[in-house]
Amino acid sequence: MSNVSIPKGTRDFGPEVMRKRNYLFAVIRNAFIQYGFEPLETPAMENIETLTGKYGDEGDKLMFRILNNGEILEKAKSSENNNALIKNVSEKALRYDLTIPFARYVAMNRGTLAFPFRRYQMQAVWRADRPQKGRFREFYQCDADIVGSNALLNEAELIALYLDVFRTLNLNVEIRLNNRKILAGLANCIGAADRLTDMTILIDKLDKIELSGVMQELEKAAFTAEQCEKIQAYLSISGDWKTQLTRLREIGLASDEMVAKGIAEFEEVMTLYRLMVGNNDGIVLDLTLARGLNYYTGTIIEVKAKDVAMGSIGGGGRYDDLTGIFGFPNMSGVGISFGLDRIYAVMDELNLFPQEVVSATKVLLIQFGGIAESVCLNAIRQLRLNGIPAEIYPSAEKIKKQMEYANKKQIPFVVLIGDEEVAQSKLILKNMQSGDQQLLTLEEMIQALKN
Amino acid sequence: MSNVSIPKGTRDFGPEVMRKRNYLFAVIRNAFIQYGFEPLETPAMENIETLTGKYGDEGDKLMFRILNNGEILEKAKSSENNNALIKNVSEKALRYDLTIPFARYVAMNRGTLAFPFRRYQMQAVWRADRPQKGRFREFYQCDADIVGSNALLNEAELIALYLDVFRTLNLNVEIRLNNRKILAGLANCIGAADRLTDMTILIDKLDKIELSGVMQELEKAAFTAEQCEKIQAYLSISGDWKTQLTRLREIGLASDEMVAKGIAEFEEVMTLYRLMVGNNDGIVLDLTLARGLNYYTGTIIEVKAKDVAMGSIGGGGRYDDLTGIFGFPNMSGVGISFGLDRIYAVMDELNLFPQEVVSATKVLLIQFGGIAESVCLNAIRQLRLNGIPAEIYPSAEKIKKQMEYANKKQIPFVVLIGDEEVAQSKLILKNMQSGDQQLLTLEEMIQALKN
Repeated sequence: MSNVSIPKGTRDFGPEVMRKRNYLFAVIRNAFIQYGFEPLETPAMENIETLTGKYGDEGDKLMFRILNNGEILEKAKSSENNNALIKNVSEKALRYDLTIPFARYVAMNRGTLAFPFRRYQMQAVWRADRPQKGRFREFYQCDADIVGSNALLNEAELIALYLDVFRTLNLNVEIRLNNRKILAGLANCIGAADRLTDMTILIDKLDKIELSGVMQELEKAAFTAEQCEKIQAYLSISGDWKTQLTRLREIGLASDEMVAKGIAEFEEVMTLYRLMVGNNDGIVLDLTLARGLNYYTGTIIEVKAKDVAMGSIGGGGRYDDLTGIFGFPNMSGVGISFGLDRIYAVMDELNLFPQEVVSATKVLLIQFGGIAESVCLNAIRQLRLNGIPAEIYPSAEKIKKQMEYANKKQIPFVVLIGDEEVAQSKLILKNMQSGDQQLLTLEEMIQALKN
Repeated sequence: MSNVSIPKGTRDFGPEVMRKRNYLFAVIRNAFIQYGFEPLETPAMENIETLTGKYGDEGDKLMFRILNNGEILEKAKSSENNNALIKNVSEKALRYDLTIPFARYVAMNRGTLAFPFRRYQMQAVWRADRPQKGRFREFYQCDADIVGSNALLNEAELIALYLDVFRTLNLNVEIRLNNRKILAGLANCIGAADRLTDMTILIDKLDKIELSGVMQELEKAAFTAEQCEKIQAYLSISGDWKTQLTRLREIGLASDEMVAKGIAEFEEVMTLYRLMVGNNDGIVLDLTLARGLNYYTGTIIEVKAKDVAMGSIGGGGRYDDLTGIFGFPNMSGVGISFGLDRIYAVMDELNLFPQEVVSATKVLLIQFGGIAESVCLNAIRQLRLNGIPAEIYPSAEKIKKQMEYANKKQIPFVVLIGDEEVAQSKLILKNMQSGDQQLLTLEEMIQALKN
């Protein structure tokens, strides 16, 4: 078999990519832990009933289903149509996101969990989407949620967590906030409360088709001229957040109860954040932010990288009843998600990954064989006991070949121990980048590499 | 929906379990990095052709297959039998182990990898085995392999890595070594070279059915009385490894070329390990060790926990041609695997998980509301900036409720800041286990919690 391949839309992550990914996972995980979030992992496969109907018809179609094991011929043959067939031969599917498995877990463990329950989860999800640039059939989600508390301090904490992570990554970002109550209030005000979802879906397209495009689509979707005018006035509001709130009041929207509630929530989140961190730097109000998902009911959050053209690299929001579908109603929650693949792409483009991520191994011991070998074997042990990631080439090949290995793995130092060095109880430490060589004792080398 | 469940044989890993699992992953990963292994992750699903025929008929049956998306009714209806049906409606399956995906990856990337290639991989695998105690349908494997080098130093390094990990875990283990060449030589000697696999499979049962049972099964499998006698003499060899090797020579086996080669390899591994670490402590020769997998050709390794009855908690060995099936022949390699679930079970039974794994959050700030809130919000920020995992209860609920939350999450300290403390610019730090309370400044508390 010479034409080996992997399924389309999936990826192997080789050493270099994995080290960078692991660095991102570690930074994010560390922030989650700092903020008191607890780890959760759920199975790759869930029962079909857990997943279907939760992501719309589209989602149901894009799920990867697991074929039942054993005899399925009879059931397959007697199936009336494609949907019946799928139901008859498959009882499980791969998870489609981390939110539904989380809700399912909370509902199943409601009796033992400490509420408010703060969990983080970093696992792969699978979608049978058509693969294209930046869109994969297997990708990781990194989520943090707090359920069982409607306090707005949770929102402030999640924003602080976001900004901490991106500061650690040296990635310049902007946190965009809005509140679904403001959008719901807008729909109320224009007499289109029942069309909130239609409206938010169209507003969501603003990034792609600009204001004129959105207005055209609203018209096409049979919003009246008067409604369109009010939506346009709303979407045209600009300035810093205080100016925007003033404008909202000026155009009369703030007199709607829902809008007023949304504004109050937004202001409280800003106040709590300021009391915690000392300022509101990096946070903006974006009244055009809609976030398509229906289940958001309060604060909505999106993160944009500032120095590069890229969609959002993170997002989340407040939902009022996520676990109700699993028989555990009225649990308010708020969550955020890190878009790992996009963060990776931005970091890579801006060359932001730290140098030490490039190679984990700090030093390669070159093998000459003979007596030097036992000296090398002792040296490698001492290096590792001192916490220095080290390798020894496993056999006494030509030095050129061993050096090439070090170069290919981008190992920054090699150690050479020939008979002469053995006689002097010394070794040569060579810096592979500068070419500098030092004659050192083992102790001295360990000290040099520790710094 | 009130009867929510997860597929049988799968598990949710809640916070407490995950913290312990993450601790194990971190210790193992850290050792892999110390020894120069590079991270690899492969997709959960592989093309069917990559997996089928690699694990025997049994393996093919136990694979979880992914149903093709889209219209499959026609193909299903026209299928002649169950096997044809499965082929017609499924082109992908979930990975069954990490070894075949690794071999596939090496074959696909042979042109760019630095050989010898040292990779580690820690990912879930899926098998449709009948679930039972300690056997799951989704479980993690943690593998490290070196391919592209037949130097026996690799074996010595992997043994050192094993012992380093278990020393870090405070888990008392024994490394059992054998060499498949000794077993192959034994089969030669008794004129059963063509029945090596049958023989090793039966020898593998020694742990379960003892020597008498194995002898009965050998007889049943039509090994002759003379053959059985020689196998019995071999399996009865005991003592330390030097005594065992002497005995192998005494009963004439060592005159077989293969046996002699196996002995020489074993001795060299021991010598190299001793030169590296200074002794051979914790390593034994176990001539009855067979390890069923056909692809092993040299050293075989198994790890047993010493203070508890449990099967092997790790194992591996040398194989001569793993990537040949993917068109890249003659790549010798050697690998080991950590049995995460079993290591977890042993650690839990012996109570070996360190205390700091129990709770990640070190301190909970109790909320009283009012002016104290802003003091609390500043305090939580300072704690986190100082690297102390900290939480603040999100709303000013009854103190009893907040304390219960701290207890349930096993958070070791709580902080109380009432109006009186605010007036003094102090706070109360309470040790939840001892009940001790200290009146401290914020600075003093941070220092106290850092230690």
